[in-house]
Amino acid sequence: MLRHFIVISVLLASYSAQAEEPPFGIAIHGGAGTITRAQFSAEQEQAYKDKLAEAVEAGHAILAAGGESMDAVIAAIQVMEASPFFNAGKGAVYTFDGGHELDASIMNGATLAAGAVAGVTTVKSPIALARAVMEQSVHVMLSGKGAEQFAEQQGLELVANSYFNTDARYQQLLEAKKRLGVADYQAYLALDERFKYGTVGAVALDKNGNLAAGTSTGGMTAKRWGRVGDAPIIGAGTWADNASCAVSATGHGEYFIRYHVAADICSRVKYQGVDIVSAGDTVIHDVLLPAGGTGGVIIIDAAGNVHMPFNTEGMYRAKRVGNQPTEVSIYKN
Amino acid sequence: MLRHFIVISVLLASYSAQAEEPPFGIAIHGGAGTITRAQFSAEQEQAYKDKLAEAVEAGHAILAAGGESMDAVIAAIQVMEASPFFNAGKGAVYTFDGGHELDASIMNGATLAAGAVAGVTTVKSPIALARAVMEQSVHVMLSGKGAEQFAEQQGLELVANSYFNTDARYQQLLEAKKRLGVADYQAYLALDERFKYGTVGAVALDKNGNLAAGTSTGGMTAKRWGRVGDAPIIGAGTWADNASCAVSATGHGEYFIRYHVAADICSRVKYQGVDIVSAGDTVIHDVLLPAGGTGGVIIIDAAGNVHMPFNTEGMYRAKRVGNQPTEVSIYKN
Repeated sequence: MLRHFIVISVLLASYSAQAEEPPFGIAIHGGAGTITRAQFSAEQEQAYKDKLAEAVEAGHAILAAGGESMDAVIAAIQVMEASPFFNAGKGAVYTFDGGHELDASIMNGATLAAGAVAGVTTVKSPIALARAVMEQSVHVMLSGKGAEQFAEQQGLELVANSYFNTDARYQQLLEAKKRLGVADYQAYLALDERFKYGTVGAVALDKNGNLAAGTSTGGMTAKRWGRVGDAPIIGAGTWADNASCAVSATGHGEYFIRYHVAADICSRVKYQGVDIVSAGDTVIHDVLLPAGGTGGVIIIDAAGNVHMPFNTEGMYRAKRVGNQPTEVSIYKN
Repeated sequence: MLRHFIVISVLLASYSAQAEEPPFGIAIHGGAGTITRAQFSAEQEQAYKDKLAEAVEAGHAILAAGGESMDAVIAAIQVMEASPFFNAGKGAVYTFDGGHELDASIMNGATLAAGAVAGVTTVKSPIALARAVMEQSVHVMLSGKGAEQFAEQQGLELVANSYFNTDARYQQLLEAKKRLGVADYQAYLALDERFKYGTVGAVALDKNGNLAAGTSTGGMTAKRWGRVGDAPIIGAGTWADNASCAVSATGHGEYFIRYHVAADICSRVKYQGVDIVSAGDTVIHDVLLPAGGTGGVIIIDAAGNVHMPFNTEGMYRAKRVGNQPTEVSIYKN
């Protein structure tokens, strides 16, 4: 009798383990800022939502098939890099001089390996180059021409800088320059937040319990002085640690560096024992906002919980956790 | 009787408050690595110690006179930048192409304002430029030619890149290249730690209770690819927050970025409530060393406690706290 009970218990436990798939999921953002319903026609809004859904599902498919979080992050970001909708890859904003300089970073939560590139001008997918730096070099961060030489050697796809030209971004440059007035003022005068934001990112948890995070951006409209924002800064724009969470940030980069936002959220989870909702809300609403730092983050933890707090009017975002449906949002609530 | 007692108590308290000066102090480092007694003659060792004492006392004098921690950090670092002994400023190592590219960063613990520069070639004092970025621009990090244009506009002292030439560093470049063998290997092969280290830094607490930290470096011998190390990365090489501590790091930069060493030490103090000895030792010995990350940090907290842990054979370091004598050390113990 007892023996039968044990056999049945073991069978049930085994069945339950098979039925209970390990948690997995992905969240993405396409930038935060003054994004309001008034800006969009119904068609435009739907086009953005479709692209966000396409990106999150590209990553989710990899996870659902048992693939790695790193691959899912890359796949999701590359959909957004290839779209003119977001300030990353194809849709990168213009520098003051009328060109494009792109930044990206990526981090593996299992190993704390990381890769980052700043100021690249001819690499079609900066996030792919960040991964190559992480996996194929002994360095973490490469910049400018050196980063491009490395990309070429790695056989990554190179494009003319004009590949990143789009009329919508060019109009933004003209408007930004008009507002700046005197060229040299950019180091001193803060631009309207419309010209500062727009970055894409993804965070993912795979079925092996490994977290990853990545961020890619075209930087700030009319940027000068070789300005580096938070996107390529490990700890500011990107962080992943299996012991806490994975974060990708978007917003006013200078504040995200000074408050090392991505790593600080994970440090709070790790050292204070709070959850990602508490840690994320505290940093975005109670620390950054009073200091004047606007933007948002996407966070995923090792249990597959996702939180996407932002203190701006909107943040392009989407998530798909386990076998739940895809959720896409732009505005608050 | 009670009234006399109260008067006397108030007088004593007032006297005690005047006699008990608020805590202040400064600590500096001049790089960590395989620094052994066998390398130095007695004269050479004394020359290094004298320069470290000169640097720490330059900062201490400012603090003792009631000056700001930011000014003390700058003063101490500029003594080391002006000396050929350290891999920063005048003594900067050579890049693969035979030039010099310098990085620096600084942070104000009272405001969390920060400034950083990467890859500058003509700025005599990179730490002064980092401060100008922090105070005179809306940005946190500038790189390359843009950073130099900004330096020129700010009226900082510019020099020919050859100002940084020294024979000792040139010999190191030749030796590093011999070891690397094939040029393109640098992205893949790690160099001996002798070629990776050497950075200067300072952390200070002023009588107003404000912390500051700064770091300046010539980077890695024979570096290519626009490699960016930890020195200009806020959170990796430099961090200061009045609520916890101020840290400047030196070591194998890639590990210091991946483990966001400076900020992580302060996060442990802030969120775990541990002291700087515990936080610093844990990160340097228990986190970094097992991962393969060698180097060290200097830490000061708001009570004027100083801790300078390192996991290499030596670290050039000095401290002067309050009116205690200057202490200068190079090796362990």
